[in-house]
Amino acid sequence: MSQKGRKSCLALVFLTGMLLPVTTAAQQPSLNLMPLPAKAQLGTGSLHVDSAFTVALTGYQEPRLERAVARFLHQLALQTALPVSQKPAKSATASLVIQTDHASKEIQELGEDESYMLEISSSVAKLTAPTPLGTLHGLQTFLQLVEVSPDGFAAPVITIQDQPRFPWRGLMIDSARHFTPVDVLRRNLDGMEAVKMNVFHWHLSENQGFRAESRRYPKLHQLGSDDLYYTQDEMREIIAYARDRGIRVVPEFDMPGHSTAWFVGHPELASGKGPYQIERRWGIFDPAMDPTNEKLYKFLDELIGEMARVFPDHFFHVGGDEVNGKEWDANPAIQQYMKAYGLKDNAALQSYFNKRLQPIVAKHGKSMIGWDEVLDPTLPKDITIQSWRGQASLAQAAKLGYRGLLSNGYYLDLGWSAARHYAVDPISGDATNLSPEQKQLILGGESCMWSEYVNPENIDSRIWPRNAAVAERLWSPQEVADPVSMYERLDFISGRLEWLGLRHRSYYRIMLQRIAGSSATPAEFAALKTLADVVEPVKDYTREKTAPAEPTSATPMNRVVDAVPLESEAGRHFGELIDKFVSASCLDTDVAAQLRAQFAAWRDNDAKLQPLAQRSFLVKEAAPTSADLSALGSIGLTALDLLVKGAMPSDSWKAQQRAATEQIKKPKAQLLLIPAPAVQKLIEAAAAGGTCATRN
Amino acid sequence: MSQKGRKSCLALVFLTGMLLPVTTAAQQPSLNLMPLPAKAQLGTGSLHVDSAFTVALTGYQEPRLERAVARFLHQLALQTALPVSQKPAKSATASLVIQTDHASKEIQELGEDESYMLEISSSVAKLTAPTPLGTLHGLQTFLQLVEVSPDGFAAPVITIQDQPRFPWRGLMIDSARHFTPVDVLRRNLDGMEAVKMNVFHWHLSENQGFRAESRRYPKLHQLGSDDLYYTQDEMREIIAYARDRGIRVVPEFDMPGHSTAWFVGHPELASGKGPYQIERRWGIFDPAMDPTNEKLYKFLDELIGEMARVFPDHFFHVGGDEVNGKEWDANPAIQQYMKAYGLKDNAALQSYFNKRLQPIVAKHGKSMIGWDEVLDPTLPKDITIQSWRGQASLAQAAKLGYRGLLSNGYYLDLGWSAARHYAVDPISGDATNLSPEQKQLILGGESCMWSEYVNPENIDSRIWPRNAAVAERLWSPQEVADPVSMYERLDFISGRLEWLGLRHRSYYRIMLQRIAGSSATPAEFAALKTLADVVEPVKDYTREKTAPAEPTSATPMNRVVDAVPLESEAGRHFGELIDKFVSASCLDTDVAAQLRAQFAAWRDNDAKLQPLAQRSFLVKEAAPTSADLSALGSIGLTALDLLVKGAMPSDSWKAQQRAATEQIKKPKAQLLLIPAPAVQKLIEAAAAGGTCATRN
Repeated sequence: MSQKGRKSCLALVFLTGMLLPVTTAAQQPSLNLMPLPAKAQLGTGSLHVDSAFTVALTGYQEPRLERAVARFLHQLALQTALPVSQKPAKSATASLVIQTDHASKEIQELGEDESYMLEISSSVAKLTAPTPLGTLHGLQTFLQLVEVSPDGFAAPVITIQDQPRFPWRGLMIDSARHFTPVDVLRRNLDGMEAVKMNVFHWHLSENQGFRAESRRYPKLHQLGSDDLYYTQDEMREIIAYARDRGIRVVPEFDMPGHSTAWFVGHPELASGKGPYQIERRWGIFDPAMDPTNEKLYKFLDELIGEMARVFPDHFFHVGGDEVNGKEWDANPAIQQYMKAYGLKDNAALQSYFNKRLQPIVAKHGKSMIGWDEVLDPTLPKDITIQSWRGQASLAQAAKLGYRGLLSNGYYLDLGWSAARHYAVDPISGDATNLSPEQKQLILGGESCMWSEYVNPENIDSRIWPRNAAVAERLWSPQEVADPVSMYERLDFISGRLEWLGLRHRSYYRIMLQRIAGSSATPAEFAALKTLADVVEPVKDYTREKTAPAEPTSATPMNRVVDAVPLESEAGRHFGELIDKFVSASCLDTDVAAQLRAQFAAWRDNDAKLQPLAQRSFLVKEAAPTSADLSALGSIGLTALDLLVKGAMPSDSWKAQQRAATEQIKKPKAQLLLIPAPAVQKLIEAAAAGGTCATRN
Repeated sequence: MSQKGRKSCLALVFLTGMLLPVTTAAQQPSLNLMPLPAKAQLGTGSLHVDSAFTVALTGYQEPRLERAVARFLHQLALQTALPVSQKPAKSATASLVIQTDHASKEIQELGEDESYMLEISSSVAKLTAPTPLGTLHGLQTFLQLVEVSPDGFAAPVITIQDQPRFPWRGLMIDSARHFTPVDVLRRNLDGMEAVKMNVFHWHLSENQGFRAESRRYPKLHQLGSDDLYYTQDEMREIIAYARDRGIRVVPEFDMPGHSTAWFVGHPELASGKGPYQIERRWGIFDPAMDPTNEKLYKFLDELIGEMARVFPDHFFHVGGDEVNGKEWDANPAIQQYMKAYGLKDNAALQSYFNKRLQPIVAKHGKSMIGWDEVLDPTLPKDITIQSWRGQASLAQAAKLGYRGLLSNGYYLDLGWSAARHYAVDPISGDATNLSPEQKQLILGGESCMWSEYVNPENIDSRIWPRNAAVAERLWSPQEVADPVSMYERLDFISGRLEWLGLRHRSYYRIMLQRIAGSSATPAEFAALKTLADVVEPVKDYTREKTAPAEPTSATPMNRVVDAVPLESEAGRHFGELIDKFVSASCLDTDVAAQLRAQFAAWRDNDAKLQPLAQRSFLVKEAAPTSADLSALGSIGLTALDLLVKGAMPSDSWKAQQRAATEQIKKPKAQLLLIPAPAVQKLIEAAAAGGTCATRN
């Protein structure tokens, strides 16, 4: 199917159940929204947005809504550079009239009404929502609709009725392995608001750091954080900031494992002898709390009580993952205890711990949430499971009556493509066959930003824009699932997110500049960028396995692997071009010319980069990949020539090219050369003989 | 002379009076410093800079120095991404040992010792300075020397003895016409520190705004600022921030003209009847203080007293420029007064005002500084003249015994090239013939950022990187004057300034994105950038004259003219390429190929941009310039063909091309197409007949 034909079909897919005037090819895509709304009906014409634009609040009012309007107007001014007045307007004359029916809960709750209706005519816009939560979402939708037009800025005439598919749409940030400064958190909360996510899951303790100030047990943060921790004021400030944006904050204190940093100040809680140091390496480690120690529960009661007063949310995350049990095995007293109480294995011991923990959490008014491992049918049904293991685990929990959310498939640090995350649905696999009631127990999902390899400089690029694809998966109807449309809108939202101060694009040149050094000529820098644009870090957990030296929290993040985005846009576009070329029923000479120019540029790139590799150790590390890119360019050119000439290659040519690209596909310096598989497709097309025309 | 030969010569020019091991062509330029130091001797080898890098303070110590070291280490960590420890080290083991001899003045003064010596060996670095001011400068030099190398980060073995040529090296920011938020000021103070500027001249009052909180006369800021003003706490915070960076803060309260905003709350000070409104337009306006009103001096005594307590600097700027005298002429009482006291004209009246003002300023412990117009031989010699008129005016003041500083030639808002600013020397023209004592009265200079067309989004790009060229002019020896070297190092420092948070590069894509709109395809966006990269806003005061509608403080700054840098890098590089091509003694086929590719890209660019011009009014405005660029590409190709073929063009061809490029040179939408004059050179080369080879 042609590109154009595909687009029209997609437009229909998005807007199932709606009457939509089909746009002609000459018109631009008019629904640049992410996440896509539940229902939208596009009209004709547009609402002009100029310096006179005003907003009026009617119905229920509160300071949070006033601040939301001020933020909206500020954002509108940033997007358009129009000097929009920040003053509130009267509803009779306002450009945008907001009607909020009633208050939302004083402490934002799971499952509150987040719906809104946005009606834009050519003269006025009206946003209606039952609660401020819907109003907040509707304002973000409006901002996304404002666009430059032939005669100024404008929003299209449209009616949108929208509400989320799932009530729990979260982003977890691991602020423990690497500390996340508050300004970084703030701008990421801004990004979450833009894509309508509503839970910030804050991973606050780990082997590598205890990041929350405890006044009750100050040795936790004083000895367990290298002085990188959040004061209680800062945590309250982040909670208020999130609440203003319709986002709940769920803290996680991971126990009984992942807790070495606790033991630096409190070795008496551990199952081993100690003393303990803050862990600097990554992985799963032995230290674990001693579930047989009565003093532990007293301690946790006090600490959870303190943190429950800081964090108003009804959920409290206790972690519970990845206890290797080695300290338990090695402790005779624990072994003795297990025998005495009939705890047959470490799983039983952890289950015992959770049964003691749950009432403590409940006592402080919270509902306990933990990773898969906390699932135990003998625990109360109030517990929620966050699944890093997958939909099967989630379905199992739902069948047992437990609520759950999906994170498997949404681990942003694994370097998956947006499309791969996007294809993961909480209600899929085993979950498809659940009863409607059981399905209701699947609350949604959370993307996870584990922070072994992120710092304030590159973290935005590890979260965005891919997180927007997860946000859409959790907000939009299940049928909204086309990756081509998703990528178009992802490019759109990615640019928009920069207005919010996110640095997922601007960080890149700055990091490449460090790698190149100031002595780089413009041509050398361009060569470095040409290479960097088509590589990605190795995926999943390969980074640990292939590290040149054991990585620690002190390892500098200044290498090419730290600088390049986790999904190469250029690589993706090249792959699409190759697919188009090899699947065409006749030779597309335009595409052939594009490919030829691309291959030639790659072939010649290494020679341009070599002098820089002599001067910068950070470039030098990528030199083998640079050589591979040149080789790939040459291979591509020969394959292209064969296809254009319609010549049949020799068997030795085929064998050589296949072997060469296999070599090229092997990661070097933890970098994957993304175009390699696409070039293999070209080789196979050539190997099949003749031109595309003769093959079809 | 070949490029290589030129570079070697330049290296000698920079380092007059120094012994320098001449670098081979294979080595990289090793003195990437801006401003260049007074003396430097490069050694062999380098000091390795890794995570173990430490700093020790010896000799005189103070909290400011400790903060400077912490900032230095933070900056080093940003540049290298090395996890450098922030903890102070012992001098015996530190990588960088700082020896500061004694304190500088409690309130930083004009002419304090700012010298330092930096000695870097392959094992340790030593920074020695008489005062903390020199230490601050030396730390910046060290940061500039740290560079990526073949085996990690390193600083070269070098000995630098450095001190400034002028004691007053300033940047004026007009925070009155458009308000400058404090975070913008902070990052620009960081930039000033990096290039060793030491005076921030803060233009705080204007017709368009009174930006300083006055507790004595709160109507000044309450009615005269649209609520955009600095609280006294904020001003003190900026002063402290500047002092930490070796920068004095000189406030300017412009009087008796440029003062409409004062009169909104205090019409009784004015010479007209009032009432007054905040001025929204740009230009010179009639309102002026009434110098015959005794109450005015009482008011100014109180206000200056209040501000003198906020601003500790010994200098107090009273403006004094551009009084058109119309309100004075129209006020019978003033005319009567002038007659009674023998004040023969408005200049005499202003002189009378200044004579009353100066003792008030002096009474509050300050030395008065004003623009050229305050010069009056009957005033005390304590007055300092800031010249917007030029060196002649400055020389005249010096001959009369007044101190002065140059700003003529350093107006950053006029859009001059860095090279043009760089060529302006305070001691040139009439000043060359001054006696040594008179030359001492020329204190230095100040670049000026007048803010009619800047906002927080684009202001950094209007100041940087060009301001670094002015900074070098004022710091480095007069012989350091080669623009080719300057531009090489300007590119270097421009990248470095981004580590400080300046946005003079990163703003660009964001503004272009707004202009293009989210519907732009990557190819369309690239076409917009190709165009934007080679245009500049019209120069000097042409912008007012050519404005499509009278510009005001409410005019959105979202057009191409607001987005493009004031000096086009691509335009400059193209000009250099053409110069190289037409001056070569034989046809350079490599350059010819480069030019051909460039011309072809320009020729084809308009067709790519046209669809976007249909959709965005902000692109549409630039459509005529886009058409011009295409035409220029075609013209360039024909001229190139003639030169390559050695063919003699017809007279009608010459006439046509000359006429066409003259048309192209005319600004459209306030945009100049920068490559046009260079293409004219190519036309003339072709018109002269034959190939380059045959012509030479």
